[in-house]
Amino acid sequence: MEIQDLVQHIRTKKSFLCIGLDPDLDKMPPHLLDLPNPIFEFNKQIIDATHSFCVAYKPNMAFYEAHGLEGHQALIKTIAYLNENYPNHFTIADAKRGDIGNTSKMYAKAFLENMDFDSITVAPYMGIDSVEPFLSIENKHTILLALTSNKGAEEFQLKQMYDKYKQETLHLFEMVIKTSLTWKNADQLMYVVGATQTNHLKAVRKLVPNAFLLVPGVGAQGGSLKEVCEIGMNNRIGLLVNSSRGILYASKGKDFAKAAANQAQLLQKEMAAFL
Amino acid sequence: MEIQDLVQHIRTKKSFLCIGLDPDLDKMPPHLLDLPNPIFEFNKQIIDATHSFCVAYKPNMAFYEAHGLEGHQALIKTIAYLNENYPNHFTIADAKRGDIGNTSKMYAKAFLENMDFDSITVAPYMGIDSVEPFLSIENKHTILLALTSNKGAEEFQLKQMYDKYKQETLHLFEMVIKTSLTWKNADQLMYVVGATQTNHLKAVRKLVPNAFLLVPGVGAQGGSLKEVCEIGMNNRIGLLVNSSRGILYASKGKDFAKAAANQAQLLQKEMAAFL
Repeated sequence: MEIQDLVQHIRTKKSFLCIGLDPDLDKMPPHLLDLPNPIFEFNKQIIDATHSFCVAYKPNMAFYEAHGLEGHQALIKTIAYLNENYPNHFTIADAKRGDIGNTSKMYAKAFLENMDFDSITVAPYMGIDSVEPFLSIENKHTILLALTSNKGAEEFQLKQMYDKYKQETLHLFEMVIKTSLTWKNADQLMYVVGATQTNHLKAVRKLVPNAFLLVPGVGAQGGSLKEVCEIGMNNRIGLLVNSSRGILYASKGKDFAKAAANQAQLLQKEMAAFL
Repeated sequence: MEIQDLVQHIRTKKSFLCIGLDPDLDKMPPHLLDLPNPIFEFNKQIIDATHSFCVAYKPNMAFYEAHGLEGHQALIKTIAYLNENYPNHFTIADAKRGDIGNTSKMYAKAFLENMDFDSITVAPYMGIDSVEPFLSIENKHTILLALTSNKGAEEFQLKQMYDKYKQETLHLFEMVIKTSLTWKNADQLMYVVGATQTNHLKAVRKLVPNAFLLVPGVGAQGGSLKEVCEIGMNNRIGLLVNSSRGILYASKGKDFAKAAANQAQLLQKEMAAFL
């Protein structure tokens, strides 16, 4: 998907909501568990009920891998369902992969070609040759972990680093962003920046004023949508704000899809006010 | 698996060889491609031919994910085959995962519980709460990326970091190792250190004199087994040296398993000289 199409979609819907598809059998409505493929059935009903209020879906790979072959099947069916029925929605494989070149190439093939996701989240620790294979695929996007929403972000991402060649001191997450701009096809990069990290959002925007940011951590994790918008929004919006649990598990009853839609609509209305 | 059992296995076999199971249909003997499950068949024959010369197997997830459901099936069959027939061999899910706590928990379940791998490789970028869920599973091991063998390792891992609380300057990989020692169940940690990084192996051993290191990069990537052993070996060996392509694709003919065994035996003999 071209970025301009995503921006257009955001303007039309007045929403920059991304819904995380993290299916958890323990939290799902019990009446679905007897169906042949409860995970796909859950996703399908959530997608059908919420698609008017969001512009992106982000299945989290761990929640599928935890269910072995059945989970993998549900993932394949889910992305195929999205691509067939809602091709305007931006899709994100939340996989946080990253490995030596020939291995990253295989991951890129799996997610961006075979399953045809629009994008994938990637971890930066292994550097240039672990990320460029993802960037080499045309019309696809690589969402690099920069500053995550969790507690552990402090341990490394927020440490100061000294670059002796450039004689400058930066936080690790700033060095990651700055370095990533030198990679081939860097214009296909987006960045993960947690909603709990608004203190540092200005620094992120200084480095990448035009890039899209994928922002998790609004809701359950305590981030503020207002702050994210005030500091993070740019002239083409430049934000995808994710919510998972707050939408998916709004109800455990037969009305779960309707309850999810209500939650998504509430967030969409909040977002519309900032557009 | 207990570490002492791995050490015993190494001493008995006079080998600390780990074989990377990275099945690539383009490099495999063509006569296997007509079989119902060529990836599993390839792995099975490689395992049966090489098990006497190695103490560990490391399937690389990307090479299975690139083949969708069929790949996933081959992975499940491969780990089940290893656990059933060669339970003394240490198994490594080379997955390089790492995410917020509830997600890492799902990955830990998938690899260490459901598939019953002995260990998994994990990326450190997201810090403590992204790794501890893996460490919480008893009798399993977490192999943390420290200093990888690829070119991109220079970009972040080898940068200097300043910790203002401790008032000390360290490379990022040293800070990762040092910090990891404060995590719960840190005694279940091992570390990835590339064979191309022997310049820094002394620094690694200073921080973790007793830990096991998983060392890729001997062979195709140019690392020296001699240097790795001289600097990296400790009193319980503490090394698993990986080779993948050099063994798997020694021949593309019907003799591929025999050729792989020959390559594995050559490495085992080299290793025996250092024990």
